[in-house]
Amino acid sequence: MNACDESVAAATERTRAARPSPPLAAEVPQQPLTQGNSLEGSSLDYWLLSRLRSMLGNPPVEFAMGNGARVGSDAAPVARVTFASRATLAFITADPWLRFGDAYSDGSVAIEGDLVSLLETVYRASGNGGKRASLMRRAADALRRTHTNTLTGSRDNIHHHYDIGNDFYALWLGSTMSYTCAYYPTPAATLDEAQFAKMDHVCRKLRLGAGESVVEAGCGWGTLALHMARQYGVRVRAFNISHEQIVYARERAAREGLAARVEYVEDDYRNIAGHYDAFVSVGMLEHVGLEHYPALGHVAHRCLGGRGRGLIHSIGRNRPAPMQPWIEKRIFPGAYPPSIAEMMRIFEPWDFSVLDVENLRLHYAQTLRHWLALYEVASERVRAMFDEKFVRMWRLYLAGSVAGFATGTLQLFQVVFAPGENNDIPWTRAHLYTR
Amino acid sequence: MNACDESVAAATERTRAARPSPPLAAEVPQQPLTQGNSLEGSSLDYWLLSRLRSMLGNPPVEFAMGNGARVGSDAAPVARVTFASRATLAFITADPWLRFGDAYSDGSVAIEGDLVSLLETVYRASGNGGKRASLMRRAADALRRTHTNTLTGSRDNIHHHYDIGNDFYALWLGSTMSYTCAYYPTPAATLDEAQFAKMDHVCRKLRLGAGESVVEAGCGWGTLALHMARQYGVRVRAFNISHEQIVYARERAAREGLAARVEYVEDDYRNIAGHYDAFVSVGMLEHVGLEHYPALGHVAHRCLGGRGRGLIHSIGRNRPAPMQPWIEKRIFPGAYPPSIAEMMRIFEPWDFSVLDVENLRLHYAQTLRHWLALYEVASERVRAMFDEKFVRMWRLYLAGSVAGFATGTLQLFQVVFAPGENNDIPWTRAHLYTR
Repeated sequence: MNACDESVAAATERTRAARPSPPLAAEVPQQPLTQGNSLEGSSLDYWLLSRLRSMLGNPPVEFAMGNGARVGSDAAPVARVTFASRATLAFITADPWLRFGDAYSDGSVAIEGDLVSLLETVYRASGNGGKRASLMRRAADALRRTHTNTLTGSRDNIHHHYDIGNDFYALWLGSTMSYTCAYYPTPAATLDEAQFAKMDHVCRKLRLGAGESVVEAGCGWGTLALHMARQYGVRVRAFNISHEQIVYARERAAREGLAARVEYVEDDYRNIAGHYDAFVSVGMLEHVGLEHYPALGHVAHRCLGGRGRGLIHSIGRNRPAPMQPWIEKRIFPGAYPPSIAEMMRIFEPWDFSVLDVENLRLHYAQTLRHWLALYEVASERVRAMFDEKFVRMWRLYLAGSVAGFATGTLQLFQVVFAPGENNDIPWTRAHLYTR
Repeated sequence: MNACDESVAAATERTRAARPSPPLAAEVPQQPLTQGNSLEGSSLDYWLLSRLRSMLGNPPVEFAMGNGARVGSDAAPVARVTFASRATLAFITADPWLRFGDAYSDGSVAIEGDLVSLLETVYRASGNGGKRASLMRRAADALRRTHTNTLTGSRDNIHHHYDIGNDFYALWLGSTMSYTCAYYPTPAATLDEAQFAKMDHVCRKLRLGAGESVVEAGCGWGTLALHMARQYGVRVRAFNISHEQIVYARERAAREGLAARVEYVEDDYRNIAGHYDAFVSVGMLEHVGLEHYPALGHVAHRCLGGRGRGLIHSIGRNRPAPMQPWIEKRIFPGAYPPSIAEMMRIFEPWDFSVLDVENLRLHYAQTLRHWLALYEVASERVRAMFDEKFVRMWRLYLAGSVAGFATGTLQLFQVVFAPGENNDIPWTRAHLYTR
């Protein structure tokens, strides 16, 4: 980001924190945002600000320069975005969906007002199709070519995100260390309650019974595998290519006396062998890559062999759309959230029957609000572990993800499936809700 | 079917009836089926019988000629299929998935044993992919070209099936006149209980509230529309291009004093106008045709306008596959059961969020068992209305449909959706199961 001016220091930013559902007033700076349209500053600055705002669908957001030029302050703006220099502004305007993130991270963009509300407003204004998608697609396509999920590529991509330190994730994931969408029986549930409820929801959808065997593809820090063994009496083989996570999971299993029933394997899902009663994968599909979906289905097919049942839980889309390019570049290389039709490429070649699809996007928005709140509480410790730029980068990622799920830009699909010829499937879904 | 020999009269067939889950023994004729392999009859007959059985995956079924030639009697066969002549056998062998139905209908094929069990056995043996699909595809493609669902084509296709007489359908659909998959809270529910439970399941999925407006695309005999108005206090506009059904539905609404709240419109779904809180379509999608899915989505999009919610209920497939060609030719011209990925062509262009997909295939197998049992009880009356050939044709259609759903050849998908930007969606699905 050499074109960026870092003159707007983080210290001058009046509001950093994005907390769950805050009253907007509490986040708005003392200085009123609405001061009427202004043509202060050069007409080039004004033109650039207008152009950027127009590219984003003219959201009710004030875009301003340090020198006083501003646009979008006529309606009551949700937030103010101030660019440190004309160079920053011009740089972002050339490719806002990729470059805003870096500019925010290095402090050359300052935000007054609630970050989540700002992002939700921009997402809603720019819509989910048309111009925004085509702008993002070009950038995303270029990135994806460098981030393919071959066996080696997957290791690099997963290492980039999941191996940055268990201590870091422990600061804001809650006690479960579950880094996937939780399930809130009511919106008032706590994060930990909702993560346990998610694990039970998954286990009930899989109708796990004592003595059965389960294989898990992509097990994170091993939480679900332990829960299944502890609460449902099953044996689990859980696969992951993140070394840090596997080490953590094994220690945890040993500490909890479950090492005999939960085996953590540091290997790629493509190398899973053996037969199992259930196949489960929660939050791995985002990293698989479309071209490997039939291979993932083949693994499930091999594992289940005409009986049993499976569940795949993944971030998704209403329709095919590129990954947000900044997120793909800085946070999740090689990641892609599929549409339902794209997910079917896993199941169709193997004649799997899809039994149940549940969209939990509002639950992921809530999960992310809880993570973001914990993250803000821990931000000084994150700064001590990394630096201010890292703090801002991850704040933007978490806040942007809240906005994505809250506005319907992102979805969360839980898909239950079974081999096509298997009639040992639940008669109804009532068992998920009656205990 | 001029190549068929009608010499095997229906009267010589020992077992006609297919009833829900009968003990096989009760359906098997007195004469034992297993008599050891036989090479009686000419070697050409034997070759044809073997070839046909091989094309169907060598199911444990005895294929026999009146002259004594038989194959498949070595293992305990599920049923015996006897061909009246070599001409019949040769004709069927050339295209079994299309021609068996006509030969069974005109009596030139006789079946001993339970018809549903026979068909399930053949479906399982022939598998859902590969050879069977490619055999069916050619025949189905040819038919579909003549049965396109243009505005006029749809009227012709719908008239063919739904306008053959309300009195006929009243004989076997139960008191609700619902001609779509029922929902059995338990497998022991009666047909009528399950049809009412289905209507409530749909209404709860749509979260209908008193005073709301609903548009229904393809309303059959109007049962669901009346139920929604009566039980949920909504106003309904219900569309159908079957004249017979619309007349029946209007009389029923008047008789039940609901004509002011339920309007039946004899028109194509493509002509639906106006704004509504909910869009519902139960059992129409099968007749829409893939190429018109985006148009159907456009109608829903126009009706809901960024708010509200919708439900589409349809027969489907695990993966794209041609319609069973005999069913398409004789029973449902222009019909096609889509895969989930194909269904997404309705939703993706309009940024609809799919919230919930439920597969109810075992419920449709049960519904069809109940219909078939009622149909057999009424078979003399059906014969009096039409003729023996019609009786056999519809028996085969109903029995084949039981087998299709029971073996996983056919699926039943209920899809709940909402405009992508609508956050007024159910927090969980618990409300469907807790009353």
